Amino acid sequence: MTTAHGRVETPVFMPVGTVGSVKGVFHRDLAEDVQAQIILGNTYHLYLRPGMEILERAGGLHRFSSWERPILTDSGGFQVFSLAENRKLTEQGCHFRSHIDGSKHLFTPEGVMDIQRTIGADLVMAFDECPPGTAPYDYAKKSLDLTHRWLERCFGQFRKTSPKYGYEQSLIPIVQGCVYPDLRVKSAEFVQQFDADGYAIGGLAVGEPAPVMYEMLEIVNGVLPRERSRYLMGVGTPVNILEAIARGVDMFDCVMPTRNGRNGMLFTSEGIINIRNEKWRADFSPIDPNGTSFVDKVYTKAYLRHLTIAGEMLAAQIASLHNLSFYLWLTGEARRRILDGTFGAWKEEMVVKLSKRL
Amino acid sequence: MTTAHGRVETPVFMPVGTVGSVKGVFHRDLAEDVQAQIILGNTYHLYLRPGMEILERAGGLHRFSSWERPILTDSGGFQVFSLAENRKLTEQGCHFRSHIDGSKHLFTPEGVMDIQRTIGADLVMAFDECPPGTAPYDYAKKSLDLTHRWLERCFGQFRKTSPKYGYEQSLIPIVQGCVYPDLRVKSAEFVQQFDADGYAIGGLAVGEPAPVMYEMLEIVNGVLPRERSRYLMGVGTPVNILEAIARGVDMFDCVMPTRNGRNGMLFTSEGIINIRNEKWRADFSPIDPNGTSFVDKVYTKAYLRHLTIAGEMLAAQIASLHNLSFYLWLTGEARRRILDGTFGAWKEEMVVKLSKRL
Repeated sequence: MTTAHGRVETPVFMPVGTVGSVKGVFHRDLAEDVQAQIILGNTYHLYLRPGMEILERAGGLHRFSSWERPILTDSGGFQVFSLAENRKLTEQGCHFRSHIDGSKHLFTPEGVMDIQRTIGADLVMAFDECPPGTAPYDYAKKSLDLTHRWLERCFGQFRKTSPKYGYEQSLIPIVQGCVYPDLRVKSAEFVQQFDADGYAIGGLAVGEPAPVMYEMLEIVNGVLPRERSRYLMGVGTPVNILEAIARGVDMFDCVMPTRNGRNGMLFTSEGIINIRNEKWRADFSPIDPNGTSFVDKVYTKAYLRHLTIAGEMLAAQIASLHNLSFYLWLTGEARRRILDGTFGAWKEEMVVKLSKRL
Repeated sequence: MTTAHGRVETPVFMPVGTVGSVKGVFHRDLAEDVQAQIILGNTYHLYLRPGMEILERAGGLHRFSSWERPILTDSGGFQVFSLAENRKLTEQGCHFRSHIDGSKHLFTPEGVMDIQRTIGADLVMAFDECPPGTAPYDYAKKSLDLTHRWLERCFGQFRKTSPKYGYEQSLIPIVQGCVYPDLRVKSAEFVQQFDADGYAIGGLAVGEPAPVMYEMLEIVNGVLPRERSRYLMGVGTPVNILEAIARGVDMFDCVMPTRNGRNGMLFTSEGIINIRNEKWRADFSPIDPNGTSFVDKVYTKAYLRHLTIAGEMLAAQIASLHNLSFYLWLTGEARRRILDGTFGAWKEEMVVKLSKRL
């Protein structure tokens, strides 16, 4: 995928930089150690704090946060429906109160496009409704129709406006439809009329069993054009990612590497480590001898366990760098395996290893 | 000062690595960015967690924490008297309960020497009683006598035992005596019988006015031998440090750069910044154009303010690196100024600047 801030080689994992920082990670380490190609920003959070005035005066999120590689922003839909208070959904958009100070706001498809013009991400997402994973068919169908009407309004506004900082942005539509095959097919067909640079798949990994998610991916990717990138939003575990790559997904984002890292869970090529476990107490071997981050060889499991139990910030920093590096290694290795034709066998082997608790 | 893990050029500031990590700072950044020559560990914390068994099996704190430069450990006295619960002081030592799990422990001069042999720091501190800054003369005198008897026991035990990891350690006595000139003189004379590699000054910056602290430093440094390093424990602000250097102090430690950094206070060569202030909201200039850390030029004040207000971990990391780098720059610059004979005038000028709120 080519953006104004550089080329992104897929499959790729995008670290989540909620309010303009990937939690606990210096931009230098994100670029050089993790080797992140692209990161995510959350429109909902950035809109509330630091706010549009500051981002515009800074010259956009890249300049504000000192990140020179590509950025993708979500549309705020997911956060409005999961974080905000007193939300009221209408045809026009979604009224809500800030989870920070209770102030009243309205997100509309047009408004969210303007906000994302101001944030200035390379890839901007359409504003959609995110129905719960358990939504019954009728609700899912009505919600999808609304999301499609909003998508038309998003493209209308996006095409009427220009980038603010002298570089192009791409608007990415989102395929919704819950766990209903006919709705997913309908949505995957509908979104193609906009001839976008990529297509996202939303509303998965929200509580449905993994096999159902994989089934939906097969259905949607059977309809989406092969020559455009497909982005599975908010997914997931290393196994989820490999299974989704096997089904044609190119891009991923998830808070799991940083959030679970902060809680002491490490993802490695040999399996999952809960570093709080007694068994690592006197294990003076490197955190991950196969790891690609500098922290993997410098620090031992016993030391990281000690810092985690003592509640030291450095533990969260080490675990976040390790996990992000592992996720980037995983998607990079998947790319190499796809190119040399060994992806299938490697994936089967890795899925077994990655499911193990060490 | 020369140690088994390398030479330390004084005056020097020693970052505090409480439980074996300087809060929020990778060892790599501490060595290469902050350019710390020596760091501190807290005996009380390390004794409770990870505990002696783990540290001994790891081969000492250097190997456990992957820090290859010199380490100094305090004796735990200060923490026992400020953090621990149910403490009971006797001639033998101090009984206390852990602030973590309430377990019962006893610190004696001999025991604390054995603990510090196991931790394996290059410089280990004598076990002393730390009376409150407001202690009346009679209490201060009795406390000092006890500290002196304990000092004899510390050296007795230290000289009876050998280093555990094949390199030499130095035991540093502590001059006490509260704010009473005659007690300070007596203590500064008493400690010299042990012909130590350096001498510490404890029990200052515990509530007394700064001029009283400076007076005590002049008195004590008038008595201590000129050719040995003097370490002022737990001090302080940049101004305190310059005033103490002017009065002959060589070594400092303090949690201020990291703790105040985590709360949004930045020390710079132009004055003190409270990054939470509204005035930095849209200030897109570098955090500190004169700063020596990589964060100083990469990030802007507006961005750091945003992260601080949003409670992002990265804010604490940036501020900690900046402040530590500033403290190391300050003591390094003091050294250069002393060597080229311009310290006096420079110090006067800096004291004015460093007291300013920007």
